[in-house]
Amino acid sequence: MTHNVTTAAAIGGGVIGGGWIARFLLNGIDVNVYDPHPEAERIVGEVLANAQRAYGKMLLAPQGNTGRFTFCTTLEEAVRDADYIQESVPERLDLKQKVYRELARFCKADALIGSSTSGFKPSELQDGLANADQVFVAHPFNPVYLLPVVEIVPTAANSEDTIARAMAFLSEMGMKPLRVRKEIDAHIADRLLEAVWREGLWLIKDGICSTQELDDCITYGFGLRWAQMGLFETYRVAGGEAGMKHFINQFGPALKWPWTKLMDVPELTEELVDTISSQSDAQSGHHSIRELERIRDDNLVGILMALKANNWGAGKVVAEMDQRMYERARVQNGAKQVDLSMPLTLHTARVLGDWVDYNGHMTEFRYLQVFGDATDAFLGFIGMDDRYLATGHSVYTVETHIRHLLEVSAGEDLRVETRLLGHDEKRIRIVHEIWGGPQDACLATAEQMLLHVDTKAGRACPTGAALADKLSTIASHHDGLEKPDYAGASVRDI
Amino acid sequence: MTHNVTTAAAIGGGVIGGGWIARFLLNGIDVNVYDPHPEAERIVGEVLANAQRAYGKMLLAPQGNTGRFTFCTTLEEAVRDADYIQESVPERLDLKQKVYRELARFCKADALIGSSTSGFKPSELQDGLANADQVFVAHPFNPVYLLPVVEIVPTAANSEDTIARAMAFLSEMGMKPLRVRKEIDAHIADRLLEAVWREGLWLIKDGICSTQELDDCITYGFGLRWAQMGLFETYRVAGGEAGMKHFINQFGPALKWPWTKLMDVPELTEELVDTISSQSDAQSGHHSIRELERIRDDNLVGILMALKANNWGAGKVVAEMDQRMYERARVQNGAKQVDLSMPLTLHTARVLGDWVDYNGHMTEFRYLQVFGDATDAFLGFIGMDDRYLATGHSVYTVETHIRHLLEVSAGEDLRVETRLLGHDEKRIRIVHEIWGGPQDACLATAEQMLLHVDTKAGRACPTGAALADKLSTIASHHDGLEKPDYAGASVRDI
Repeated sequence: MTHNVTTAAAIGGGVIGGGWIARFLLNGIDVNVYDPHPEAERIVGEVLANAQRAYGKMLLAPQGNTGRFTFCTTLEEAVRDADYIQESVPERLDLKQKVYRELARFCKADALIGSSTSGFKPSELQDGLANADQVFVAHPFNPVYLLPVVEIVPTAANSEDTIARAMAFLSEMGMKPLRVRKEIDAHIADRLLEAVWREGLWLIKDGICSTQELDDCITYGFGLRWAQMGLFETYRVAGGEAGMKHFINQFGPALKWPWTKLMDVPELTEELVDTISSQSDAQSGHHSIRELERIRDDNLVGILMALKANNWGAGKVVAEMDQRMYERARVQNGAKQVDLSMPLTLHTARVLGDWVDYNGHMTEFRYLQVFGDATDAFLGFIGMDDRYLATGHSVYTVETHIRHLLEVSAGEDLRVETRLLGHDEKRIRIVHEIWGGPQDACLATAEQMLLHVDTKAGRACPTGAALADKLSTIASHHDGLEKPDYAGASVRDI
Repeated sequence: MTHNVTTAAAIGGGVIGGGWIARFLLNGIDVNVYDPHPEAERIVGEVLANAQRAYGKMLLAPQGNTGRFTFCTTLEEAVRDADYIQESVPERLDLKQKVYRELARFCKADALIGSSTSGFKPSELQDGLANADQVFVAHPFNPVYLLPVVEIVPTAANSEDTIARAMAFLSEMGMKPLRVRKEIDAHIADRLLEAVWREGLWLIKDGICSTQELDDCITYGFGLRWAQMGLFETYRVAGGEAGMKHFINQFGPALKWPWTKLMDVPELTEELVDTISSQSDAQSGHHSIRELERIRDDNLVGILMALKANNWGAGKVVAEMDQRMYERARVQNGAKQVDLSMPLTLHTARVLGDWVDYNGHMTEFRYLQVFGDATDAFLGFIGMDDRYLATGHSVYTVETHIRHLLEVSAGEDLRVETRLLGHDEKRIRIVHEIWGGPQDACLATAEQMLLHVDTKAGRACPTGAALADKLSTIASHHDGLEKPDYAGASVRDI
């Protein structure tokens, strides 16, 4: 099924409308906007700026071929050429119905019309319309430019062709259209959110927790799970090899405990248990529980590492644990004095799972990551710490010569041996060797030229006396070491 | 507050007990386990293997200093030297109370005793115990070795010292201990989960959606949000500049709509609205809504990229969108013929948000990532595709000489110009230049020596005729280009 949409209209340009516009534009669709709100252009502009920032970070493909964006002064002008219309006006039924009557007058006969309504049923929007077939619910989630899910709710008035074209179009907008089987107030996701919101209000009111503590329960706990497996798949894994039927039979009765303010639950008839377990088989049965556990763990690891990079939430806790483990290793190695008569071992690393390519070997650029971390460790060792950087000085790498000697696999422990080859008032020349592997061999080497810079002026400048002294002390020992035979080598002619 | 725990005991070694053991061992704590279940050693072994795999991928610090692990044949043996005891036996109150009576006989007088119970109140566990002070709820979430949150529920029988020591110890285990203000059945998180489970059962029973569709609503939607901001913080952002009080006043009444099977909600008195909005201010008020939006987006981008790397869930949708955008760019560039009389432009990249360091400049090793991707593009151009790799041949980089010329910032678009400098039957010598930035300048160069290899034999071998022909054709043009003055250069003496 293809969709043939080249022009879309957004009726309503708030935070939700703006998110739709961003998705459409990114995917090369021209967009006409109509919103009489005096602040609409500012609000849409802010959402588009946020979206562009996020897409720039997330997507690799060129983003030059975006659609054309037009702010229209009448609804008619916005929709008359539109193949797809998304209505995101405020959540008042009378207002929405008025918009749908106007759309019926001005839109193309084969235009698709989706509503962003979070609460109303599509039959309420279609009420009294001759063109009811064109109108359906397409309910997205904030931020619309990033979250893929969109609930598509049709009624009997919609043709299969209308819904199939809508699903095809929204899929091509990078979304995950989800067809709701029967219309109900608030569709699916918001009913779940409502249930949590209601229970949350009781917990706050009864003084069991604060909003912060309730949120922490989510973001440091089941929220991490739900970014990658939902309620049923998570419980399937928790249920273990015995499967979903066993899980429900074991945990189902717990639902009758007086755990919540409201506890009317559907009776767990054999029929309902069968429905759930056979649906769960269809959903996840092609993976064993062991496989699901590994997939879950890989996803959680990735999510935690992403949050760690942002120093936020659960990722902050992981960063702190990693830090404590480094400290513990340092304390246990504390008795060892750094021996300047040898190459310095200031950095070790483990080859992480996502550092290897499809051959199972460490990816080329990860070598430079290890060398770069070793350079940072060396700079720390000579006294370039947070306080030094705060004075507006730093050291930049200007040149690196890498030689790859042996293959490196995931899980291997690496250590870097570092020698100072030379230095003057602005420059430092070092060589690193990565050692490790089953035979504890030299796996790769890197020769680097570093330059001391004034970061504000953006140019080279002499190091302070303290750094220079430390470099001279190291040099007085390292000058006595044998110079590596590859130092000063270049990539040679063929 | 410090904890002084060096030895822990795990009573019950299922999936939950095993997760606790993994955390303790990782953090250097010795662990004694008691579990009379005949499969206990196998189950714990499997959980520890999963945990080790996940930690290996996630943590950078050396993991050599783990604790000692002992399977004990009696409860007494397991607990008599333990400073911290974690009970994770099946969820039956009579069984748990029996364990607590035994623990009272054998454990140290200052040992801390946490229960993994998801449903019982700590007062039920303490009932009739002389050492009630030692016993509290420490409820974790599966997988315990990855999810940080643990609900700590005390009663009036616990001294502040007991709870403070427990919180300090669990923090050092890389967890996020969360103190629950008043004991209730199921604590906090499971009440929220119960509410979703109950609503989910109705949705399935009423045929609104399948388990798969319900899970998709979560993992492609609000589950992504909840990995990084909870219910209240998310709604705070959605409420916009007007703040939390405005949000509740606007959306609160919606809770009385007939959206759910059960709709008894706390009355939104002025007092409750004030409680929530002032707690929300304390939680998030130090960030503006704009800041929270950017933090949220950075986290969502990171999470989506992590899931994309695993080709799972919402990340799969992003990967497909990126792919479609590449296709679209290719179609639009299709008419352009590759001009061999010029350096080849086969690879472009955008500097992603997590490619820059704290100075805002592209991190050293990302340069080599861009160069490596350009090398892959060049190899693809000369005919080294999936089918060629499947014959057991590949090309490895043996040497790279990088020169950093100008700073590169996040969001910049880069293109790589590639020249063939030479080749023989096994070797290819190329040079890449990264161009871009505000002045479209040369930002960095890399000279590389590549080696054609037989991957099974693990040694160099001649390229096939097709590759050799293509290389000769390119050489016949590129030999006429000016040779870069930096080709063959080395890092020089100081």
